[in-house]
Amino acid sequence: MDTPLAEPISSALIAAVGRGDTGYALAGRLPEAFAGFAARHYGWNPEPSAARLVPDVMSGIVEILRIISEPGDRVVVNTPGYPPFFYWIERIGRQVVPSPLAAGPDGPRLDLDRLERDFAAGARAYLLCNPHNPTGLVLTREELAQVAALADRHDVRVVVDEILAPLTYPGHRHVPFPSLDSPAAARSVALVSASKAWNIAGLKAALAVPGPDARAEVAAIHEEVSEGAGLFGVLASEAAFTHGRPWLQEVIAGLDENRRSLAAQLADRLPGIAYHLPQAGYVAWLDCRALGWGADPAQIFLRHGRVGLSSGTRFGPPGQGFVRLNFATAPDRLTEAVHRMAIARDRVGDHPRSRDL
Amino acid sequence: MDTPLAEPISSALIAAVGRGDTGYALAGRLPEAFAGFAARHYGWNPEPSAARLVPDVMSGIVEILRIISEPGDRVVVNTPGYPPFFYWIERIGRQVVPSPLAAGPDGPRLDLDRLERDFAAGARAYLLCNPHNPTGLVLTREELAQVAALADRHDVRVVVDEILAPLTYPGHRHVPFPSLDSPAAARSVALVSASKAWNIAGLKAALAVPGPDARAEVAAIHEEVSEGAGLFGVLASEAAFTHGRPWLQEVIAGLDENRRSLAAQLADRLPGIAYHLPQAGYVAWLDCRALGWGADPAQIFLRHGRVGLSSGTRFGPPGQGFVRLNFATAPDRLTEAVHRMAIARDRVGDHPRSRDL
Ligand SMILES: Cc1ncc(COP(=O)(O)O)c(C=O)c1O
Ligand SMILES: Cc1ncc(COP(=O)(O)O)c(C=O)c1O
Repeated sequence: MDTPLAEPISSALIAAVGRGDTGYALAGRLPEAFAGFAARHYGWNPEPSAARLVPDVMSGIVEILRIISEPGDRVVVNTPGYPPFFYWIERIGRQVVPSPLAAGPDGPRLDLDRLERDFAAGARAYLLCNPHNPTGLVLTREELAQVAALADRHDVRVVVDEILAPLTYPGHRHVPFPSLDSPAAARSVALVSASKAWNIAGLKAALAVPGPDARAEVAAIHEEVSEGAGLFGVLASEAAFTHGRPWLQEVIAGLDENRRSLAAQLADRLPGIAYHLPQAGYVAWLDCRALGWGADPAQIFLRHGRVGLSSGTRFGPPGQGFVRLNFATAPDRLTEAVHRMAIARDRVGDHPRSRDL
Repeated sequence: MDTPLAEPISSALIAAVGRGDTGYALAGRLPEAFAGFAARHYGWNPEPSAARLVPDVMSGIVEILRIISEPGDRVVVNTPGYPPFFYWIERIGRQVVPSPLAAGPDGPRLDLDRLERDFAAGARAYLLCNPHNPTGLVLTREELAQVAALADRHDVRVVVDEILAPLTYPGHRHVPFPSLDSPAAARSVALVSASKAWNIAGLKAALAVPGPDARAEVAAIHEEVSEGAGLFGVLASEAAFTHGRPWLQEVIAGLDENRRSLAAQLADRLPGIAYHLPQAGYVAWLDCRALGWGADPAQIFLRHGRVGLSSGTRFGPPGQGFVRLNFATAPDRLTEAVHRMAIARDRVGDHPRSRDL
């Protein structure tokens, strides 16, 4: 995000610089700070002493998958999906089972029938991303309960990436998966972090937070792994979860305007692009297939409009013909981005010659 | 270390807080900053563009070992050795081959005969730690050349942990392994970091620096791994390597006094403990075997003297009967530590009853 730091975070970091407090990280009071935030905002009371510090959400996912599954096991991941999921799951020798989202009238939604088939085919784990990157989908309590029921039926362990939860827009409600009342939820592990919402991903801290029946697995995360976390990430996250809410509310209000203004601008200037408002987060998942630009429109936008978007192809096969746009920037920069996209569209037209692709 | 931060580091961090610069890390100018430091202090000119950012030295070692070896391969490690080496090498499915140092009249030294036997038995890689933790041994150019010759003869890849190099005491000289003139050196990879010398291990940045014939292997470090580094680690390390030398010289002068004062105090109050001045770093490797306290004297010192030392047993079998003392603290705290060790010795005596152990 293009935004200054929240004041409680800057103060905490400047104080640490003053103390010369830059050695190896311990979890300190971060678990309590997160538990307080979860209680206030989600009505969830995770046990702080059961949480383990990890360097980031991705490495926490990797650790938990290593603990709850064996090499060769199948791990279900919705597609489109956050690209590093594919790299890391393969890297630890587990097999990614892509489970595409369905296209609904209001945008992408979870395809429970498909999920059940993928579970039934013999999955060990489901890496659920809620809120979802790149679509911004926030699953409802009912949907999550159905996921839990499927996981129970097919004995699938649920690992849930909730990194985007603090960035949920008004009108939607984040429900932490481990807070649900079901055996699969009790055996699930959530990965949480202040890193996306407070823009401190470079400081390196996240938590693995177990449901009541997954404490042993989270406790099995080796201390060598926790020691890879960043101390400034811990201090900044603790400040964020404890005192960072007012700043976050302002940021969300600004992002909310941007996500709506983007819809208006696209409808006006690029009606061929389909876009559904994300329910959380600051990326827009843009369906450019009607432009007829093939698998990777991001390349064409870059070449012909000098505007940088993430290529949808990195998010798995359903990302072909899509681009992801980060709108956490000043309104005039967002307008400029759409303007450049429109320039590219005007130059290349609907049926680009092959040299444009 | 118990010490305030170097001023160039605090300034760089405070400026980053002011800019709100806390997103994902890129290597930025860190490789150039390290190359400048290496040229000035070691007469070595590594190619900055060939270096890759990693979160820390340990994860850099893991990445390179994954790239240059296969599961099941044997990796030689000197013992006593830095404890996380054992955990991580096993974790990636490689086999640790412990190669004990020899006991010389001036303290531990590299046992080249033993090393050759371990290489000859079929090792794929040698994880060399120079300067060495926990003994503080700094290998001479001649010893390193002999290591390189052995590695060439037995086709062993050398990965060298040089994290302690900036903490080398006057009178000794750090020679970067990849700077040597030999095929094994050209194919070696050094892991370097400002984290120990400038006390910023919690900020998370290190570099993998290849010899001229190991560039492809270092380039194969996946960008997902580099993205795990901490941005503040990058900024602090860049400041350290560029402007941090005056601060470091003062710190080394203080540590030098401590390492000598520790020798005097031990000779006076605990003559049963054998101690050789480390040639680099701020830990003392104390041979307590003559006390007759069994494998783990650290426990006895803690219980009977309330003084916390690292147990030598964590460093591999040759660590039995040893403790590691961190002397990077104020002189009066060091004196207090020795005093407490002497209290424990007085209480327990030379032949403790089993309930003391
Ligand atoms: C859904 C999701 N998970 C994980 C991550 C990565 O987070 P971390 O840097 O903590 O691994 C991101 C970053 O954008 C994300 O969007
Ligand atoms: C020899 C040696 N290697 C590696 C490390 C760990 O460094 P990092 O935190 O960069 O992995 C240490 C830390 O004390 C060390 O002494």
